[in-house]
Amino acid sequence: MINREQCLAWDKEDQLNQFKQHFALPEGVIYLDGNSLGAQPTAALSLANHVVTQEWGKDLINSWNTADWWGLPTRLGDKVAQLIGADSGETVITDSTTLNLFKVLSAAIKIQAEQYPERKVIVAEKDAFPTDLYIIEGLINQISQGYRLVLIESNEDLYSLLDSNEVVAVVLSHVNYRTGYFYDMSAINAKIHEKNALVIWDLCHSVGAVPMELKQTDSDFAIGCTYKYLNGGPGSPALLWVNPKHQEGFWQPLSGWWGHQQPFAMAQHYQPSQGIRRYLCGTQPIVSMRLIECGLDIFLSTDMQLIREKSLKLTDLFMQLVEQECSEFGFTLITPKQHKHRGSHVSFRHEQGYAIIQALIARGVIGDYREPEVLRFGITPLYLGYEDIWNAVQHLKNVMTHAEWKNKQYQIRGSVT
Amino acid sequence: MINREQCLAWDKEDQLNQFKQHFALPEGVIYLDGNSLGAQPTAALSLANHVVTQEWGKDLINSWNTADWWGLPTRLGDKVAQLIGADSGETVITDSTTLNLFKVLSAAIKIQAEQYPERKVIVAEKDAFPTDLYIIEGLINQISQGYRLVLIESNEDLYSLLDSNEVVAVVLSHVNYRTGYFYDMSAINAKIHEKNALVIWDLCHSVGAVPMELKQTDSDFAIGCTYKYLNGGPGSPALLWVNPKHQEGFWQPLSGWWGHQQPFAMAQHYQPSQGIRRYLCGTQPIVSMRLIECGLDIFLSTDMQLIREKSLKLTDLFMQLVEQECSEFGFTLITPKQHKHRGSHVSFRHEQGYAIIQALIARGVIGDYREPEVLRFGITPLYLGYEDIWNAVQHLKNVMTHAEWKNKQYQIRGSVT
Repeated sequence: MINREQCLAWDKEDQLNQFKQHFALPEGVIYLDGNSLGAQPTAALSLANHVVTQEWGKDLINSWNTADWWGLPTRLGDKVAQLIGADSGETVITDSTTLNLFKVLSAAIKIQAEQYPERKVIVAEKDAFPTDLYIIEGLINQISQGYRLVLIESNEDLYSLLDSNEVVAVVLSHVNYRTGYFYDMSAINAKIHEKNALVIWDLCHSVGAVPMELKQTDSDFAIGCTYKYLNGGPGSPALLWVNPKHQEGFWQPLSGWWGHQQPFAMAQHYQPSQGIRRYLCGTQPIVSMRLIECGLDIFLSTDMQLIREKSLKLTDLFMQLVEQECSEFGFTLITPKQHKHRGSHVSFRHEQGYAIIQALIARGVIGDYREPEVLRFGITPLYLGYEDIWNAVQHLKNVMTHAEWKNKQYQIRGSVT
Repeated sequence: MINREQCLAWDKEDQLNQFKQHFALPEGVIYLDGNSLGAQPTAALSLANHVVTQEWGKDLINSWNTADWWGLPTRLGDKVAQLIGADSGETVITDSTTLNLFKVLSAAIKIQAEQYPERKVIVAEKDAFPTDLYIIEGLINQISQGYRLVLIESNEDLYSLLDSNEVVAVVLSHVNYRTGYFYDMSAINAKIHEKNALVIWDLCHSVGAVPMELKQTDSDFAIGCTYKYLNGGPGSPALLWVNPKHQEGFWQPLSGWWGHQQPFAMAQHYQPSQGIRRYLCGTQPIVSMRLIECGLDIFLSTDMQLIREKSLKLTDLFMQLVEQECSEFGFTLITPKQHKHRGSHVSFRHEQGYAIIQALIARGVIGDYREPEVLRFGITPLYLGYEDIWNAVQHLKNVMTHAEWKNKQYQIRGSVT
């Protein structure tokens, strides 16, 4: 049996405890949705003031040079690189994850068309975050030429598709947004490359949550959000990484001025910049871009291994406490118990999932709900402690014991959950 | 002869004089680059604070509903609509101008392919802002199928191309970024439609600068920046307008979750939202998006006709004063003198253009330089007066009289001008 005192003791000896002070969290809230929108770094307020009044207001157009707006996509990219196992010059922050998938999948298709023109299958997971599937559909519809999307439900599906030698590229969620299933990147890359397919990793639910080695594991492409575990701010622009071996020679189709070799020469023809900058397109939302650095700098002052250790302890604790305190309420754990296959969130299935999440939110415990029937709790080790997990589960127990979820107002679905 | 007293008198009787107080401009600066990065509305500071501390920091994920982040693209779009002659539900603010051109040109190509499958020519101006040409190239390369880009240098080029009956769509800059040439939208639309081609207007240098009637003139598509004359903030997301007659039935290829009919149903297949929302793609940079409203609200409290009248008086004045004060220094006016063909900036060609602009900047007169040899001065009637124009030309005269531009430091080109 785990009790509150044990949780308090773990908090006391926690090496990451000090980081909570760098985040502005409202009083009385246990925030378990940092995997959807990361909390606000306290530094973001003064930086926002500076960007608005000094960079925009006073320095105006000159800030492209003096505040290095021009270098933002690669400067921020090089910081993210340190969290994903990449070297400098391989990552940019730009546009959205969805658009970045369009770019890298276009590049993957071009690369493969040169060597394996007969291959036409793009593989993705049935359970991928839907926007990945939507943009793949959009791309395939546009280029036609017989390309088709095939959805897999398991690794076995993947392996048998790979055996067909028809696969161009495989798009995988490094950590599944719903279940929290965490792929073994190295093993999967080897399987995919064995059959000469390329891999695109969607890191939305893994960057800042788990350590990874994109380059050492010989991944091909990666994309992902900066506004979840990385605390970049609501809807902040996304990351895009390309293995240097694929960077040159392929011109992604969203070719805009920022990706041009000489952006100010006003040339009539597009000539892509060397290296990763060719994945840039149009002008970026500078205020949102600037704020990303606050969260990144916190991450770079700590260690992803420490974060991972605490994440596993907290998710273990969450699972154990729900089993211990809420066993009679019909929650079905859908997140893997195996550490090597678990990201940094914990999900349960419950037929009243939506109303239960609403009742929890009313108590200040912010988790989220995902169709169908999934209660999802994000675990962010930099601003959550062991007592928070204890308290969250006690709230859940109370919601269930007193059937608070039956309150009618919790059953009316809003537009965004 | 115009003198300073005359300019002061005009300022006194200026109905728009009061609006300058709504913008934070640095002391001692005459800002003639609002056509590149609009000045900061004073309201943007408190709004940025609110968005960071309250919406992001305190309300967290709930702000999607409580602060209506979810409705931002269309709520802002409906405000812009009032400045471009469009109705509600026809405009979104999202992504960048370059990406939005990719979307609407893709739609235009699909529409035309159904009725005129043999047509393969996309027309754009040789003197278009280059990113428009780059993204057209990217799109054409990707879809192949024989599409090609043909560049025009004059209206006569356009008309003879249209006569060939090969034209799918024409992309035109409503106001040219370099010369300030301003198209007669109504007349050009008629010419283009007469030959069954479609028109895409790039409004980057016209929205907020000149009145326009997109719908009444039967335009097909429009895209444009919010960070220039509209004062939306550095790199703020762009506008996209589609004539309602083209909105349904065509699925633009950058299909992401935000454009889905049921974004939270987590459906595996893309089903575009009805209407203009289908031009949305991935998650938007909320902080940058939110700040756009400050500038828009200023515009909506005034009148584009008044702005246009003052703009023409100021640009007339600028041209007259350069002629009167600087006639011996070799400036060649490249902006049309005819009101109906002039936007809201004035450009001169001078072989020492780059160094002259640098010397002016050192004096606090911020204009910009565009290759080749173009000095460009943006005229923004909401925060510039007649005396500002007088003073700017006096500075120019001094730079030339004392040959300040010969100072070596002004001749070293930086990365961004």
